[in-house]
Amino acid sequence: MREWAAELHNIASLDPAWKEKARRHLKQQTRPEGSLGILESLLERLVAIQKSETLTIHPQQIFIFAADHGVTEEEVSLYPREVTQSMVLNFLNDKATISALARYLGAQVKVVDIGVDADFPLTLSLSPEGRGQGEGRLIHAKIGRGTKNMTREAAMTAEELEQALQVGWDLVRQAKKEGVKLIGLGEMGIGNTTAASAVNAALTGQPVDVMTGRGTGLGEAMLQHKIEVIQRAHALHGKYFSDPLQILRRVGGYEIAAMTGAILSAARHSLPVVIDGWIVSAAALTAIRLNPKVLDYLFFAHQSEERGHRLILELLEVQPILNLSMRLGEASGAALAMSILEAAVRIYNEVATFAEAEVPNRKQTTKHSS
Amino acid sequence: MREWAAELHNIASLDPAWKEKARRHLKQQTRPEGSLGILESLLERLVAIQKSETLTIHPQQIFIFAADHGVTEEEVSLYPREVTQSMVLNFLNDKATISALARYLGAQVKVVDIGVDADFPLTLSLSPEGRGQGEGRLIHAKIGRGTKNMTREAAMTAEELEQALQVGWDLVRQAKKEGVKLIGLGEMGIGNTTAASAVNAALTGQPVDVMTGRGTGLGEAMLQHKIEVIQRAHALHGKYFSDPLQILRRVGGYEIAAMTGAILSAARHSLPVVIDGWIVSAAALTAIRLNPKVLDYLFFAHQSEERGHRLILELLEVQPILNLSMRLGEASGAALAMSILEAAVRIYNEVATFAEAEVPNRKQTTKHSS
Repeated sequence: MREWAAELHNIASLDPAWKEKARRHLKQQTRPEGSLGILESLLERLVAIQKSETLTIHPQQIFIFAADHGVTEEEVSLYPREVTQSMVLNFLNDKATISALARYLGAQVKVVDIGVDADFPLTLSLSPEGRGQGEGRLIHAKIGRGTKNMTREAAMTAEELEQALQVGWDLVRQAKKEGVKLIGLGEMGIGNTTAASAVNAALTGQPVDVMTGRGTGLGEAMLQHKIEVIQRAHALHGKYFSDPLQILRRVGGYEIAAMTGAILSAARHSLPVVIDGWIVSAAALTAIRLNPKVLDYLFFAHQSEERGHRLILELLEVQPILNLSMRLGEASGAALAMSILEAAVRIYNEVATFAEAEVPNRKQTTKHSS
Repeated sequence: MREWAAELHNIASLDPAWKEKARRHLKQQTRPEGSLGILESLLERLVAIQKSETLTIHPQQIFIFAADHGVTEEEVSLYPREVTQSMVLNFLNDKATISALARYLGAQVKVVDIGVDADFPLTLSLSPEGRGQGEGRLIHAKIGRGTKNMTREAAMTAEELEQALQVGWDLVRQAKKEGVKLIGLGEMGIGNTTAASAVNAALTGQPVDVMTGRGTGLGEAMLQHKIEVIQRAHALHGKYFSDPLQILRRVGGYEIAAMTGAILSAARHSLPVVIDGWIVSAAALTAIRLNPKVLDYLFFAHQSEERGHRLILELLEVQPILNLSMRLGEASGAALAMSILEAAVRIYNEVATFAEAEVPNRKQTTKHSS
């Protein structure tokens, strides 16, 4: 049995005593009670995850899992498949949107080739002797050169699925060992909104058309075509959909599987993990189905413009940190949310209490109090 | 005639050619078109305001306008009036929520005593000889020790209103002269959600109960009492409500008036200004009524938990940057939104184009394209 599977049920629930400690601290700071809104519940969970009176969410590690998809044979995207490879190089050259955001955050970005249909030079290896731009930031973990076409067969084999889950697991375990305090997850893969829609529809039992959106900007005709492609895949594989791992294997993708492993690992290793958008949410939902305790460790960055995303967030009863109508991926939403988390942490650590600041607290009674 | 009034109609519309330039630049960066969601329209406006191909929103200046309110005699708040004074000192001691956020941003906070019912030591003056903590960051511009009780008389005189508007105007003009690139506005004043509700209801013609919320956390009985207090003020002053300046003078507050002047000044001096929550929105709405061109220069930080705020944002057809259910004030929402703006600016300035990065752009035609 792989480590991820052996450890799956060792994920701990958050200790309510730590949450209570955080609530008490927030209440004593010089602000009306509850006035930080949803930041307060985010902080309570961070405190309970870190089990510490002082929060630290640095160093931060962003992983971008990149893979290609067999379903692109069905013309479900506006962009050619080669964009996956090009964008990986763009990330490594620090020229992409996530690069600008990560510099702003002071976060490190690692790109995981979990199944890109291209060979990257080995000088981009993780070896300590490596040199040059992007060095050490491309992780070679290729399982295959893209998944199979889900409309004809399972996207991956059972062994490939296991491998992908374990890669994600291992990377986060290693990050924990290196002292990382916050994980951000993102992805790159032409065709992967299709895979995510197929997974999310299967996991929730929602109709495919409700869970399928415009991806990088499809027009109406291509959207209808994309829906029809996913419906064909569902027709072929639907009989296996009672098992989340079967869903992942048959209509998912390597990056979605690896991120599922990464999320399980974050929860197991008590690391908070920021979930980017639509595609990472497919991984999050899969992980939650495997063990619902995972949810406590997840920080949903934003509500994506992808039209099924709101439904997923509502089903999970989570309020995302941001809602900017973004639909980019590559951990961009996660990075923006990480800057809000960092601000919240500063508040938690730095603001004076009513007593320290000699600020009068609320009146004990007033004639109109309820 | 005061400068603010003389200059009111010299506010310029944004140049569509600069917006178009920004749109073209965003489109060439290595991302699907439109994938940054509302950040794109924020960036287009910033470019058109700054008239520059490269954006800079540092240095940043946050102003917190502090004042007391005569209407607190009616017991509309859970907190005693002295909290206004104490929180001003808390800001100057860098111990408040906004202090932590401003440190994170690298923004300067100036606190403007526009009408606090307390004397602050003159060692906290703006004089260059000044020393000590908070030095130079408290601006002495007190117009009175709190407004009058709006349920009995006008909150302020016509002369006081003019003075307050001019203080806000001058501070922003001075900031512009000093090279400030982004203004954030916030406030502190026990009782000022009551004044803001009175102003916002009068400006929009919405019923008082719709535009009155729980402020720092009122229970149901006190909320009803607060509504009734504002209704009494509206009954007394309603006949003057066709004029936004009369609304401001009769049921507003010194800080709301000063922020109105600050907003007009920001627009006149081509400075982007971040609007915090419910109370700053009353100032923004007043400024927009005085000259609708102001709206182009405003960046609404967040949707406050105050229940009328969503309605105001909808009336203005603006989507706020954040929606975190916050209800704190003191520019805290503005500061969080400024961190998102800064991230957006980094993206605008730093991300490679498709051509530079040799990333294939979208396919020109596909058989299913619409």
